[in-house]
Amino acid sequence: MAKLAELSFTKGHGTANDFVLVQDSEARWVPTAEQIQWLCNRREGLGGDGVIRVVPTSRVPEYADLAAANWFMDYRNSDGSIAEMCGNGARVFARYLLASGLESSREFLIATRAGLHQVMVHEDFMVSVSMGQARIMERDDITVDLGPGYDLVAATGVNVPNPHAVAVLSSGISLTELSLTEFTVSPNDAFPEGVNVEFVQVKSDRHLQMRVVERGSGETMSCGTGACAVAWVAMKTSGADLDTEWQVDVPGGSLWVIERDGQLWLRGPAELVARGKVLFPSSIA
Amino acid sequence: MAKLAELSFTKGHGTANDFVLVQDSEARWVPTAEQIQWLCNRREGLGGDGVIRVVPTSRVPEYADLAAANWFMDYRNSDGSIAEMCGNGARVFARYLLASGLESSREFLIATRAGLHQVMVHEDFMVSVSMGQARIMERDDITVDLGPGYDLVAATGVNVPNPHAVAVLSSGISLTELSLTEFTVSPNDAFPEGVNVEFVQVKSDRHLQMRVVERGSGETMSCGTGACAVAWVAMKTSGADLDTEWQVDVPGGSLWVIERDGQLWLRGPAELVARGKVLFPSSIA
Repeated sequence: MAKLAELSFTKGHGTANDFVLVQDSEARWVPTAEQIQWLCNRREGLGGDGVIRVVPTSRVPEYADLAAANWFMDYRNSDGSIAEMCGNGARVFARYLLASGLESSREFLIATRAGLHQVMVHEDFMVSVSMGQARIMERDDITVDLGPGYDLVAATGVNVPNPHAVAVLSSGISLTELSLTEFTVSPNDAFPEGVNVEFVQVKSDRHLQMRVVERGSGETMSCGTGACAVAWVAMKTSGADLDTEWQVDVPGGSLWVIERDGQLWLRGPAELVARGKVLFPSSIA
Repeated sequence: MAKLAELSFTKGHGTANDFVLVQDSEARWVPTAEQIQWLCNRREGLGGDGVIRVVPTSRVPEYADLAAANWFMDYRNSDGSIAEMCGNGARVFARYLLASGLESSREFLIATRAGLHQVMVHEDFMVSVSMGQARIMERDDITVDLGPGYDLVAATGVNVPNPHAVAVLSSGISLTELSLTEFTVSPNDAFPEGVNVEFVQVKSDRHLQMRVVERGSGETMSCGTGACAVAWVAMKTSGADLDTEWQVDVPGGSLWVIERDGQLWLRGPAELVARGKVLFPSSIA
């Protein structure tokens, strides 16, 4: 791919969080920001929330300590920046590895910039991925202001390990109709690097519904770490057993979260919808 | 394709108006609305403003009178409804016919539900398409209200043949910063079937800039008939010669409009960016 013109791709999504996967077994492709932006451009390129470069861990010298996983998930955001981990992306990555024969068992490890993660591809092709531990921030002064006409909502800070503020709304508020374009999170110093904000309601026992506004992206259809954050807060505040799955409905579908051996696991759909070749414009090839 | 599972596609765009092209040489595919919606779904499917089924005119009995064109452009909107014609789509359709070898010369006819159109694929792979005649509506009472702080703007009604209202803004208004979410067109009875509204400024001699709000879609990156409408109004009101191209900048790029032998011609880019296969979900296959 030194002279890059055509590039083989697979497109997939998990709860409407969508990705362009590019298998690069020889580790020849060093993506430029322009190439990633073009691949993710929904009108002038292929379209996606991010690009996942599928590369052998043995070809990524800086992550030699992750050699227990055969494949490394090189995740890029749609703006071309590098991301450590993406829970929905990891499930689609795992489904791809199995579907393409790069892995042959249904349980294996994957390598990411956030370290090793266990994955399980179930019989129904739902995929579970280990997400590490969530840590609740030890402060109780975080609030979300939804604007005129709403009471201040208390929020809980959680690191998964990226920062989240979980705001549980009373049942009198219509979660689906709520405008989420102009809320504010206080105090200013609580999240110096920005925060993902989840608005949550309890639907029934171990069943939550959320909307999420991601830092840098605005409202999104789904957020894997956000689902973990809200389930973790709900588990901790309800006193419920932590060994049964909680369902978290997001605008793009449903996710399930459980704690096992001190780890959160995220389960949900992972669909591969298209494969083919893109032809880069000559200006960025 | 009676039992539809995999479908070969090509993705392309013209000024960021993007399409999924599906070649159906045997006319075996009768697309359902659900299939079109899924193909155009930007996150759970492939993504596009519309689907163009590429089918031999000889296989479309109801358009037997268009047999002078080898290929029929079966255009579907992203909601699954049928459309007569799309200027940007027609250019991408023409580029596809030449690139795939279905046409061998650079000038040919295409068939659409709006009749025959001539196309020319130029040496630089820009494509021109004949768009028929524009007709200015004979009423001078059409206005656009941009909201508080703005004077009422006089607008010109044009049929291309779909209805447009062309509002030429004074140079004191910032076209790029204008909010186009809450304007109103009056009087109510001027456009009983709805209207596409173009907001235009003159940049220099024969060079216009526009933004467009399409009926049923909201603001879009480009609109081929809209570019024809604004160029036509500008030609008619400036007294300029009609035999030189006018450049119309849209958010997605630039288009050029000229009148030749009583016909408007639209010229602009037509890019093919990817090809491959989609796998329909079993629920809609």
